[in-house]
Formats: sequence, structure tokens, C-alpha cells
Amino acid sequence: MGAKPPLSPLAPAGFPELPEIAGVSFATTAAGVRYKDRTDVMLANLAPGTAMAGVFTRSATRSAAVLDCQEKIGDAPVGGAAILVNSGNANAFTGRRGAESVEAVTGAVAETLGISATRVFSSSTGVIGEPLAHDRITACLDDLKSALSPHAIETAAHAIMTTDTFPKGSGTTVTIDEQTVHIAGIAKGSGMIAPDMATMLVYIFTDAAIEQDILQDMVSALNRTTFNCITVDSDTSTSDTLLVAATGASGIRVTETNVGFMEGLRRVMLDLAHQVVRDGEGATKFVEVSVTGGASDAEAHVHAKSIANSPLIKTAVAGEDPNWGRVVMAVGKSGARADRDRLSIWFGDLEVAREGFVSPDYDEARAAAYMKNEDIVIHVDLGLGGGTARVWTCDLTHGYIDINADYRS
Amino acid sequence: MGAKPPLSPLAPAGFPELPEIAGVSFATTAAGVRYKDRTDVMLANLAPGTAMAGVFTRSATRSAAVLDCQEKIGDAPVGGAAILVNSGNANAFTGRRGAESVEAVTGAVAETLGISATRVFSSSTGVIGEPLAHDRITACLDDLKSALSPHAIETAAHAIMTTDTFPKGSGTTVTIDEQTVHIAGIAKGSGMIAPDMATMLVYIFTDAAIEQDILQDMVSALNRTTFNCITVDSDTSTSDTLLVAATGASGIRVTETNVGFMEGLRRVMLDLAHQVVRDGEGATKFVEVSVTGGASDAEAHVHAKSIANSPLIKTAVAGEDPNWGRVVMAVGKSGARADRDRLSIWFGDLEVAREGFVSPDYDEARAAAYMKNEDIVIHVDLGLGGGTARVWTCDLTHGYIDINADYRS
Repeated sequence: MGAKPPLSPLAPAGFPELPEIAGVSFATTAAGVRYKDRTDVMLANLAPGTAMAGVFTRSATRSAAVLDCQEKIGDAPVGGAAILVNSGNANAFTGRRGAESVEAVTGAVAETLGISATRVFSSSTGVIGEPLAHDRITACLDDLKSALSPHAIETAAHAIMTTDTFPKGSGTTVTIDEQTVHIAGIAKGSGMIAPDMATMLVYIFTDAAIEQDILQDMVSALNRTTFNCITVDSDTSTSDTLLVAATGASGIRVTETNVGFMEGLRRVMLDLAHQVVRDGEGATKFVEVSVTGGASDAEAHVHAKSIANSPLIKTAVAGEDPNWGRVVMAVGKSGARADRDRLSIWFGDLEVAREGFVSPDYDEARAAAYMKNEDIVIHVDLGLGGGTARVWTCDLTHGYIDINADYRS
Repeated sequence: MGAKPPLSPLAPAGFPELPEIAGVSFATTAAGVRYKDRTDVMLANLAPGTAMAGVFTRSATRSAAVLDCQEKIGDAPVGGAAILVNSGNANAFTGRRGAESVEAVTGAVAETLGISATRVFSSSTGVIGEPLAHDRITACLDDLKSALSPHAIETAAHAIMTTDTFPKGSGTTVTIDEQTVHIAGIAKGSGMIAPDMATMLVYIFTDAAIEQDILQDMVSALNRTTFNCITVDSDTSTSDTLLVAATGASGIRVTETNVGFMEGLRRVMLDLAHQVVRDGEGATKFVEVSVTGGASDAEAHVHAKSIANSPLIKTAVAGEDPNWGRVVMAVGKSGARADRDRLSIWFGDLEVAREGFVSPDYDEARAAAYMKNEDIVIHVDLGLGGGTARVWTCDLTHGYIDINADYRS
């Protein structure tokens, strides 16, 4: 691995104060899976009856741990549950040995905690194509069990990092019938890593009591406008995993009609998604791409992703260049419907193009001044219909090349 | 504009010796459309009866010149024809004024040469969103007409450049029934440019006599495995244009069954396509991505494009890192069918992964030594069926960021 990259200039001031979630405890350890002198295994122990929902990478080459989680996620919440994550090795593209490692780890966690292996969810993140030294993980499980603490979510956020430059956490409270439920989550991810491919991993916990199928529907729906709307470099990991655990320990029941809880969960998911972008490899600018006037929401999303993934737009943002011509290009190439002569574009509040031509109000100096901001909003109106989408990304800088062109050692 | 970028390290030794094409003459001039002290307008005059075929960008925001060419391309070859190209201004996203400029230019060329305006094809390349000063072009047409020469194809290749670092040309001869027909072409393009979006423009000439519809079918078919198989940065121009003009001046007739001519035309198209990649912005490596064993050719192509467009693979190639894990990632995310456990990968002749796992023969030192080559071949076998595809790209380097993050001036 190369030198540790510097803290992202877009990092928050510090790790947030997170509410404790009744029914969840955490422990971490330095198992030496690959990294030296840092924690690399995280265990979350979940109360009996915890409902688990999840969303996973759609990669056709997804990892053994992802396949295992997908198989287990819909099961009824019988008995306790657990999440075990290691960093340093992704256990991806490791053939049959990969599946054997997942079985060994989840089986050992189940035995240690006295729960069913079908209720143990695991993730691995780090270098791919190398067999996972799962013995180093299973050797630590007794120590992890005795270290479990409800106060350790920040150390958990540290243990799952690979080349992230800061730990990511978010939490909120929601009032339901004058009672309070709590939501807290952690994430890792900064696009892809040096020396190798990384993953986005997200774990969110709540003490609300929710049926598994309702929780799954909520998470799947909210994922569409949060994690599925961020992109650092358009490259999709083999291991992306989002798990949401509802312990029910508050005794407060949440149903599909509880808009307040949905909104709280959405806030936490969006905050974590934005933090992943703010830790994007080499990022110096946080960019929101907002598309309105699409023929449909889905087509607006295609345009927004095309803009957010364009290397030419991302380098222009890095260069603080209000290069709206490249936005026209990205709309044109996206494949979704667009009419050149109805297209209008804003950078922040500045209209730069109106109905297919440079705006009569366009002022290059003001646009250039706007681009010096750390947070940039690019807004495109397609003038076709009511479809909208919002996507978040970062700029493409020399830092990205430095991190990813470094030779592995 | 920033400083002129240095000559691509992948540039050929010099401009090739090209055969003269009977029925075609060229002239260039410095009209001052945008650039100073260099030629920026090229006129090609084509003999009566010349058949024209073309392939154009599929961008939804394509330029006025492209729309005009598309309208004219299928017409019967009545009378003489001409191609007029300016560099420095793309006349794209210029609304109704853009179409008026195209009409002004093509109309004036028609009048100067005494041909129909429906037989005048124009292209514009350079900065977008600014009205084209077409008067500067039409003011030069008499001078251009008197300067027309059959020997001026190399100067034509220079006049259409924007931030290309070398002029691109290719030619061949084909023997048909013991007679010789000639093919010669020029191209411009290096992905996208500083200060703004560029285009790929290609003009190929032959003295063979070919029916327009047969020529169009040939060009469309050959385009699929040549220009449609290159990518520098996945960003699609608003102005991409390939025009093929068959003057018939050799008197030698070519039909759809003439495999030799097809093969000659294919060689010229592929050579020009490769030259565009070798002038890719910031390129230091030329990369061939070969995919075999796909469920279909179309799906193999989707995988090949996914690999060739992946920023992580392109930065790994720049860093001379045999990072085959990123190839697995790109196959997984492409959306086309793949089976992780049937996937095999080679860098050059070195097998790095076999059937979903690191190859037993893998030798990191040998793979790293291979990556030091200037030309790199990445071969993926999907193990599913008989589908194949080949795509060409370049690496992603600091040079790309330098060129595209430069502020326009």
C-alpha cells in the first residue's frame, strides 16, 4: 500500500454524537487480517427478534459474503443475530474457498454467541483475489464477545475503514406517539481504494420494532434516492452491502404508515451517502446534480448519472471551470430523451444556458466565482415533463490518479 | 486555452505516404475562426457522381452541421460534391443561429463551386455554445477554390485539428481484377479538448465506383468494429462525423461482394481509429481489450466497453499495475451476463486468473514486467458461449486531468 492519503478536505469536523440503540452492542479487534497496528474486525451483536433488511451490489461478480447475506436476509427473525465485518481482504473472486471462509466465520460467530448461523451476516472489504485468512478472525471471537459494549459504535466505524480518510456515522431520533425511537448508522467507502478495489459498507441500527418485510420495503425504497444516487467514479464494487437492523428493544412499533420514521431513516441514509462522497478518492468538491423536467423520473435519473459520471465534467469542476458545454454533452450522450432546444442549465442560482443557447444573463466572471465554492449544484431542466432526480458526486482530481495508479506493494 | 500539450508518446513516426485519390482535391486556409497563426478551414472538392456515405454521433444534443449532413447523406449523387470543415468553433448548442450558419456556409460553398447545396457536407469542431463567425469562412471560399490541389491531403489533416498533438492519416490500395483502386483518409480527435469539448471527425476518400447504398452499408458495418470500438474517456461528442466519399474516378466498380475492397476500407478505418486513441488526452499506453466466450457478440462488447471505460482499470494501466481484480469488477458491473466462476483473464500471454480464481501460474513479477510495455492487451474469456469483441482505449493519467481541468481563457 502507498502512503496514507491525507484527510479529505470535505470531511466533517468530527465523528457525530450518536444515540445508543437498545439491543445492539459492538466490539472490535486487531486480528491482523492484512493491516498492521489497527483494528480490522467488527462484531455487532443484535437482540433476539431483530428484523434484518438489506440491499446489495448488483454486480455479476459479487463476493461470497454478499451471496450469503442475500440468501439469509428474508428469513424470519428467530433468536439473536449478528454482523461480522473484516477489513483488509474482500474475499471476492476467491472461488469455492471464498464460500468456505464465509461458512467458517458465520458458523464460528453463531457458536460463540449461541445463535443460528442463518442469522449471522458477514461482510469483507479490501484486497480481492486473495484467500481470506479466516482463522485469524475466528481466533478472536471469544475476546470480541467479552468486549461487547453498547457504547462502541465509533470504534466500529473505524474498524471497517480501508482507505477511507475519516469514519462515517449518522444518527437521529424520531418521536412516535410521544415515545422516542433511535436510529444510528455507520458506513465505509471512498469509491475504490489503493491498493485495490473497495466496497461501500453501511450498517444502520434502530430500536424500533418493525416487521421484516416492512423494513425491507422501506430500505429498498429509500435506497433508490440515497445510496443509489451517489457515484465517485462509476465503478461498482463486488461487495457493496447495506444492512439495517431493527432490534425492537424500544418496544415501539413502527408500520409502513409511519412517515416520521421513514423520514428519520432517510435522513440517516442520505447523510451517510453524502459522507461517502465527501470521502471520495481525491475529492475537493461536493457536487449535487439536480435534473428537472424529465420525461420521467427514471429518465431524469439517467441524465443525472450521465452528468455525475462524466470525467470531463468532473475535471471541469476540479478546475473551477463553469463549463456548461460539457453538461450539454453529458445530457446528449445519456441515451434518455432530451431536446437540445428546450435544455436550460444553472450553476447554483446562475442561469448559464436557456432553451438550447447560452443564457442572455450569462456572466462568465460570476459563474467562475461560483465554481470556487466547495459545494457545487448543477441544475438541468429538460423542459419535457415532470420527471426529477438528484445525484451526488465529487470532482476528479490528480489525487484520484495518485491513489489509483500507485503500484501495489 | 492552456499551453499546447506535448506530442503524444504514442504518436507514429510521421504522417504516412498516402495515395492520391482521383476526383478529390483539397485546399486549406487560416480564416481566423478562433485560432491564430494556423489553418482552420479545409475544403475538399469531389468529382461529379461521387457517392457519399456517413456515420454520425447518436448524441441527443448533436450539432447543426451533423443534423444537416444526416439530412443530405442518402441523396442520389447528382453533380459534384464538397466537404467543408472548420476547427476552433463547434457551432453546437447555438440554437437557430447554428442552423443558419450551416446554411450560410454550405450555400456559399455550393455557389462558389457551382454545385447543389444539398451536396455540400460541413463539420465544425472546437468550442461549443458560441455562435460561429461564418462570415470569416465564406470570405475565404474564392481563395480556397483557386488553391484546390490533389496533393494537399496532409495539410487538410492539419487544418481540422483542435488539440490533437499529431495529424492523422491512413491509406491503402486494393487490387480488383488486376486494376488498382485507392483509399485515403484523415481524422481528428483526442477524446475531448481544452478549452472545451471536441469531436472526432473522419474523412475517407476512394476513387472506386460504388453505389451509395452499398457504400453506406459497408461503412455502417465496418464502423461497428472500428470507430465504435474505441473510447478515450466514455464521453460522447455532439459532433462526431465519419464521411466516406467514393468518386468513381478510377472507373473501377466495386459491389457488395468485393471482400478485398471491404478489407482495405476496414484497414484504413481501423488505423485511423487507433491513431485517435494514440492521441488520447494524456495517453501513455495503448490498450486492446479482447473479450471472448460471451453469451453473444453484443454482450461481449458491453463487457469490453465496461473494462475500457473503467477509471480504475485505466489508472491501474497508467501505474503499470497488473490489477486484474479491477477487471473482475468491470465485468461484474457491466450488466451483461457473466459467471464469476467461469471467468479467465490474461494480460498479454500471461494468464492471471482462471475460472474465477487467481491462476495457479500467476507470477506477479512477470505480470508487472508486462505492464511496462507501451501496448497492453487485456483478454477476458467469459466461458459462456461464442461471443467476441475487441475495443481499444488508452490509460488515464495526470495528463488527462491537466488538459481538462485547465480553466478556459
